[in-house]
Amino acid sequence: MSVASLAPEYIRSIMPYQPGKPISELAREMGIAEASIVKLASNENPLGMSARAREAAVATLSDTARYPDGGAFALKAAIARKFDVRSEQIVIGNGSNDILELAAGAFLAPGRSAVFSQHAFAVYPLASNAVGATCIEVPAKDFGHDLEAMAAAIRPDTRVVFIANPNNPTGTLLAGAEIEFFLERVSSDVLVVLDEAYTEYLAPGQRYDAIGWLKRFPNLLVSRTFSKAYGLAGLRVGYCIAHPEVADLMNRVRQPFNVSSIALAAAEAALADDEFLAQSAEINRRGMVQITAAFADLGLTWIPSAGNFVTFRVGDAAGVNQALLRQGVIVRPIAGYGMPEWLRVSIGLPEENARFIEALRQILAN
Amino acid sequence: MSVASLAPEYIRSIMPYQPGKPISELAREMGIAEASIVKLASNENPLGMSARAREAAVATLSDTARYPDGGAFALKAAIARKFDVRSEQIVIGNGSNDILELAAGAFLAPGRSAVFSQHAFAVYPLASNAVGATCIEVPAKDFGHDLEAMAAAIRPDTRVVFIANPNNPTGTLLAGAEIEFFLERVSSDVLVVLDEAYTEYLAPGQRYDAIGWLKRFPNLLVSRTFSKAYGLAGLRVGYCIAHPEVADLMNRVRQPFNVSSIALAAAEAALADDEFLAQSAEINRRGMVQITAAFADLGLTWIPSAGNFVTFRVGDAAGVNQALLRQGVIVRPIAGYGMPEWLRVSIGLPEENARFIEALRQILAN
Repeated sequence: MSVASLAPEYIRSIMPYQPGKPISELAREMGIAEASIVKLASNENPLGMSARAREAAVATLSDTARYPDGGAFALKAAIARKFDVRSEQIVIGNGSNDILELAAGAFLAPGRSAVFSQHAFAVYPLASNAVGATCIEVPAKDFGHDLEAMAAAIRPDTRVVFIANPNNPTGTLLAGAEIEFFLERVSSDVLVVLDEAYTEYLAPGQRYDAIGWLKRFPNLLVSRTFSKAYGLAGLRVGYCIAHPEVADLMNRVRQPFNVSSIALAAAEAALADDEFLAQSAEINRRGMVQITAAFADLGLTWIPSAGNFVTFRVGDAAGVNQALLRQGVIVRPIAGYGMPEWLRVSIGLPEENARFIEALRQILAN
Repeated sequence: MSVASLAPEYIRSIMPYQPGKPISELAREMGIAEASIVKLASNENPLGMSARAREAAVATLSDTARYPDGGAFALKAAIARKFDVRSEQIVIGNGSNDILELAAGAFLAPGRSAVFSQHAFAVYPLASNAVGATCIEVPAKDFGHDLEAMAAAIRPDTRVVFIANPNNPTGTLLAGAEIEFFLERVSSDVLVVLDEAYTEYLAPGQRYDAIGWLKRFPNLLVSRTFSKAYGLAGLRVGYCIAHPEVADLMNRVRQPFNVSSIALAAAEAALADDEFLAQSAEINRRGMVQITAAFADLGLTWIPSAGNFVTFRVGDAAGVNQALLRQGVIVRPIAGYGMPEWLRVSIGLPEENARFIEALRQILAN
């Protein structure tokens, strides 16, 4: 009998995450030059990273034979200052994916369950399955979270509820007051992981202060990332703010050196670069108008999105996706999210958006 | 009742890994200038990283707003070529720490056990505890692995055996033939994780070809890192080579983007820089002579080491360590490894070794 056949059943049944197709992979497969490919598949920042973050990264390269500061002293201090919290409340992750896994690893186990929404981020079931927990997927309402149904779905063995706001891949947004009401109803022995990966893209009128709620809800965890508006997806760094006891437990299961020195330094610099963040939000706002205007023009249905991406309905999504790939445009099929007729496109630079729109127009005209 | 109090008992009882004290931390605590501090605490490469790796890292910085290639196509291809294996046999980790955790995550669970040696790497119990498995620590023989006792300690519920060769923190080395004999004895339903983090430092006469054994032992996993001889500890990248079915399971629990683009690119370049590897081994060989000669001169006992560090007995290790810190020299206390009278020192540059020796000489003379 082979050792692989003896892995726990819940491990053997995991379906790995399907990432956006890398540019290099499409170039290899289709024999297209990398420079002519437009990738709007992974909700990346089309501006790249801020010049200040880049400077900090380069400066750190002289010392990368040293292990990183596993305690992330400087980055935690910067986050603590910015959000008026204590360093003991912070966990730094290898992307917010790591944060989600650390929460699952610290609070879930065989015999425990996690609650999340249909069409929500794929890492919630992955992280829950990886530690043998039961997944409770609650039907979505208008492609977004149905918090009332989620509250009702919580069982005595539920230890974690995942909420993505805005949600990926649908872009739906819950109002702050709705989440606050949910937190008031949920038992304090359930950790509510509020995944705010896209929060920096919210318009002023959409904003709410989840970090301010931490004083009232010790079972709340607010997860953020540097991979989206901060433009550091390739470096892998995210964080969460939570009750110190929750953070302490997550830090116990965290890999001692889970984040690279370069990511730590770049994130610290990026956090201080408000101008870059404002530019990123502005180019996203304009690109969203550009792309959704084209959808309207083409008679396509889309889901209004609060993130840096938008999901639209094309019917034969697999076919349209293949046709886009042949034209060197990478978007994201979301059949794995139970939406086989939809595609998700990330908002890019104006010229990238135009390439996508033109390709889509041609494909739909045929 | 708080959510933290409801984490599984095996999570709440984890004692976090104690890393070497970062230079910045000692500087803050003692008010010493960072430049005057010598850190010989974390088995880092005193030469830094190779110029070729650095070039590759800088080149990648222009594209770090993109997610890394989660499939690590290019790095796996380079490893596959170098060691004559297939890409499907390879898992890329966020340091080899990640590899050890992925092996534990894929094969251990509550109700299963892991076997490892006394005085072996601290991550083996940490990774096993984090998924609720039982730890079986086998008494060491002459500070090294007692493979006969380890084979005898394997129970029906054992799924993973960890072997570090050379071992950290003791530096002891098993001959290849001993490990081969162990593999022949062990049931194929137990994964043998052979952690070769320091293998690049072995002298020609000490070498053996564990990767070549993979054809005979589908339950063998050979773990390597870029953090030591390759000088990339700050970037976080390691790998393992195993049976494709084992690699597949580990890739299912692996974070989709567990390694940064910079680390992937730097590792690929470092793998091709044989000259840098030879320099690193040579400076280590000379430093080992320099430091052990001083130990002999001081009448100190040390454990002959095959790694880039050496462990020596000083009696009041905590006191000597504090005195070294006051002189700006960071070494590693290993009381947590059950060796409260010993300290571990990493081999540095000749002038760093001399600083350490001089400080130690003064302290022992008082």
